[in-house]
Amino acid sequence: MKHAVSYELLKTDNRTKARRGRVHTPHGTIETPVFMPVGTAATVKAMRPEQVKEMGAQIILSNTYHLYLRPGHEIVREAGGLHKFMNWDRAILTDSGGFQVFSLGALRKITEEGVEFRSHIDGSKHMLSPEKSMEIQNALGSDIMMAFDECAPYPADRDYVKNSLERTTRWLKRCKDYHKDIERQSLFGIMQGGMYKDLRYESAMQVVDLDLPGYAIGGLSVGEPKELMLDVLDDCVDYLPKEKARYLMGVGSPDYLFEGVERGVDMFDCVLPTRIARHGMAMTSYGRVNIKNAKYERDFETLDPECDCYTCRNYSKAYLRHLYKCDEMLSAMLLSNHNLHFLVNMMGNIRKAIEEDRFLEYKNEFYTKYGRF
Amino acid sequence: MKHAVSYELLKTDNRTKARRGRVHTPHGTIETPVFMPVGTAATVKAMRPEQVKEMGAQIILSNTYHLYLRPGHEIVREAGGLHKFMNWDRAILTDSGGFQVFSLGALRKITEEGVEFRSHIDGSKHMLSPEKSMEIQNALGSDIMMAFDECAPYPADRDYVKNSLERTTRWLKRCKDYHKDIERQSLFGIMQGGMYKDLRYESAMQVVDLDLPGYAIGGLSVGEPKELMLDVLDDCVDYLPKEKARYLMGVGSPDYLFEGVERGVDMFDCVLPTRIARHGMAMTSYGRVNIKNAKYERDFETLDPECDCYTCRNYSKAYLRHLYKCDEMLSAMLLSNHNLHFLVNMMGNIRKAIEEDRFLEYKNEFYTKYGRF
Ligand SMILES: [Zn+2]
Ligand SMILES: [Zn+2]
Repeated sequence: MKHAVSYELLKTDNRTKARRGRVHTPHGTIETPVFMPVGTAATVKAMRPEQVKEMGAQIILSNTYHLYLRPGHEIVREAGGLHKFMNWDRAILTDSGGFQVFSLGALRKITEEGVEFRSHIDGSKHMLSPEKSMEIQNALGSDIMMAFDECAPYPADRDYVKNSLERTTRWLKRCKDYHKDIERQSLFGIMQGGMYKDLRYESAMQVVDLDLPGYAIGGLSVGEPKELMLDVLDDCVDYLPKEKARYLMGVGSPDYLFEGVERGVDMFDCVLPTRIARHGMAMTSYGRVNIKNAKYERDFETLDPECDCYTCRNYSKAYLRHLYKCDEMLSAMLLSNHNLHFLVNMMGNIRKAIEEDRFLEYKNEFYTKYGRF
Repeated sequence: MKHAVSYELLKTDNRTKARRGRVHTPHGTIETPVFMPVGTAATVKAMRPEQVKEMGAQIILSNTYHLYLRPGHEIVREAGGLHKFMNWDRAILTDSGGFQVFSLGALRKITEEGVEFRSHIDGSKHMLSPEKSMEIQNALGSDIMMAFDECAPYPADRDYVKNSLERTTRWLKRCKDYHKDIERQSLFGIMQGGMYKDLRYESAMQVVDLDLPGYAIGGLSVGEPKELMLDVLDDCVDYLPKEKARYLMGVGSPDYLFEGVERGVDMFDCVLPTRIARHGMAMTSYGRVNIKNAKYERDFETLDPECDCYTCRNYSKAYLRHLYKCDEMLSAMLLSNHNLHFLVNMMGNIRKAIEEDRFLEYKNEFYTKYGRF
């Protein structure tokens, strides 16, 4: 039996662990490293799907927790799956819902069976478990399904993290046992272990032992200092097999993307570009732009002189500021479009740089203009 | 000197006053009768401008009052005019701001000079007069500028309406005197007179006497019964010259469009299609659809089986309902697109029906499916 998803390594950078590859899926091939726009509720906020395609996005991420509550996974199944429901024919990755239910705090109770929780919408009671998460993701029909894991907070003591990662492994086995149609959808495992490198190693050995088509690094970027995060990440990647895709969850600011790629990560996702867009913030070649700023009132130049996105081809900063001040939807539509284009385009440049063995030069060029972090 | 805007009568229906014509403007020729989408703050809400073009919209309306307050007409002038500022290269009609300032109630004071008012945004004090309205509309650079008029409420006594219409005429003369570059922009006069037919006649004679490129019928659809409105409208149109464009202000439900066309009106505008879209309501060939309704939860059919708009080609009612329930922007984006397409397409069908002398048949067909009003 052939796995739905497979990874192909094309080239490794001559000076770093950055690598150029491909993730093959039932909905097309993804050139990596790749940034995945987030479409939480079966829509990348403020975007039509073909606009997301147009800018070169190859895969999007959608959320199991949200789709389970609304509209309900059975409805998405009846609609013919998530691709058809939301009119997106490229690849989709779904998370497991674990991160969301753990974030519910007082509204949830963890047992070995899974997590009992109350909906943030209407307070209704639900249970999410490895089997339930797989059932939902099977109904959604995503190309890549994430295992139901427990993400330890930061800081957390060693015993807590050790118990948590061991439970994550037990849950991963239950996910693998439940998921049958491996030719249609692939399950990715998630490594945990907090900031303890030996626990990261332990988690990696257990997870990799299950021989899955891809692995994610979870439990990073949860509040720890950046230097610590990068140091742990560096080791985590080394514990993962070269022939499988590596996904760093929830990371999407330009600096983390560069640092992640440099350490050998293939896939990234983050709500950042669309979320800050709705607050009038843009990522540009020369750093962040806060479109609310009074200095743009009469600025008839484009948002980013080096960007050729729809927004930058057609509108001035003065117009974008006007839209934001008037609370017009077109503001979020145009800024989301630009921010997503910016990251997708940046990842394209990173891929090209790796191909040409000038990843570090491109990184340096980028930082020089964008500003250090 | 040639007027910027001119009307060309192509054909009159053989049984009604419905007429097929063209309005020539510096930004293209408009086939009439026409529905004009409203872009209050220099954006048709939740739409990219080329999507508005794509569905066949030939002209949009924008609001002087709103653009004067935000971003300010001087900024639009510096941007190169409204067309360039908002990335819309087809025709634009701007209202005079009169209707908005009169609606401010306690916040405004009317004198012969004009209307003193306080901004609904920050309470700041302003004065709008015939000259000021022209100055603003000149800065915006719209193809068609509307005269600064006083719209009498309903009901209103005869003396009030008579004084009001006479002031409207005096203000129209001041507008005409102020506006110099008649080859770049055209001024349309507005007839008032409330529900008093003799006053409507008096107003028409005064306004038509100024020999402007087009005339609007104001002061209708302000709360009076539909039968009364249609009866007055019928006479109003007869008082206007055949060789000039006729515009019925603020009317946009399908029934009023049919009734207006039947009585010889060429141009219409209304916020209705985009406003109800944001509340989850769609106009379809088979009547109104409230997408919030639970019966659409598992309805995987398209919104309107007879519509070929982007929304109906790609999405199900179940998906549209899901987006609305999740408060996703794509909901307003897709429903606005459909509703505007619906009216623009209906006006195209009306034009074709007039050409083929089957306007009444088409009207009957439409009502049979859509439902009586
Ligand atoms: Zn851009
Ligand atoms: Zn449609």
